[in-house]
Amino acid sequence: MDILEPIKQRRSIRKFKKDSIPTEVIDKILEAGSWAPSGLNNQPWRFMVLEANEKDAIAQFTKYSSIIKAADKIILVFMDKDASYSYEKDLMAIGACIQNMLLYAHKQGIGSCWLGEILNQRKEVQKHLGILENLELEAVIALGYPAEKGEKGERLALNKLMIK
Amino acid sequence: MDILEPIKQRRSIRKFKKDSIPTEVIDKILEAGSWAPSGLNNQPWRFMVLEANEKDAIAQFTKYSSIIKAADKIILVFMDKDASYSYEKDLMAIGACIQNMLLYAHKQGIGSCWLGEILNQRKEVQKHLGILENLELEAVIALGYPAEKGEKGERLALNKLMIK
Repeated sequence: MDILEPIKQRRSIRKFKKDSIPTEVIDKILEAGSWAPSGLNNQPWRFMVLEANEKDAIAQFTKYSSIIKAADKIILVFMDKDASYSYEKDLMAIGACIQNMLLYAHKQGIGSCWLGEILNQRKEVQKHLGILENLELEAVIALGYPAEKGEKGERLALNKLMIK
Repeated sequence: MDILEPIKQRRSIRKFKKDSIPTEVIDKILEAGSWAPSGLNNQPWRFMVLEANEKDAIAQFTKYSSIIKAADKIILVFMDKDASYSYEKDLMAIGACIQNMLLYAHKQGIGSCWLGEILNQRKEVQKHLGILENLELEAVIALGYPAEKGEKGERLALNKLMIK
């Protein structure tokens, strides 16, 4: 199989069907995330999965509330600062972790949207959830069975990305 | 196909055969990277590919010089600060970009090692290469056909990663 296909076909999905994602599938998505590489294998990522009312209560902290409300479940991705050895490298590791989850979800026919704007209210989200200071929210991933195809993907041509 | 297999089987490879990776394959690796998601689709990643003497000259900037020397080629991954809208989110996007490249390379039978320690001498690397200040080195990826299997992967169990 060509892994370039899922990499290129994955899209941000913002509208979802009502169907529920089985817990076992969510666990597999998280497992995929956990197999990302990290510096010194420090695995700085931590996860929280919310659904139903607990999920909907998070919508107040972002202008993209409709995506959170439409999603079946959300994964909140945190950095464990106690596990961190380099903020910068740990952020990249968490990006790799998230990409694993998006790709795995896509291959299971599950749509996802990586929400970053909510970080503007990171402190409020953490206070709402009672999440301790040694954890830092880095992303919220909305998940559900897609009710749209997603936008056409657009990327810069490779020659625009090369230096020299 | 199950995308969990390449995600879980990929390993850091530090010893490489002498065989050369064709340019077309390197371009596909970069293309895979370029299809990562980024906030506002700002695509903050930029690439430089070095081989032979130009590659070996980079080895002086890291204590992992043997990996760079053993590799067939290296990809230097930069953030384009002119394209950046959030340093933190752009680092995560670059992490996603790198993970795409590692996974694609793995599926092509190419070993890779994500080098982060070299960032300690980021300024010296950029000065050596004459890379302008609007670019920031974020990682070096060593690539080559594997001459070792890589270490056994170890990850925390999912219940250690869940909050609450």
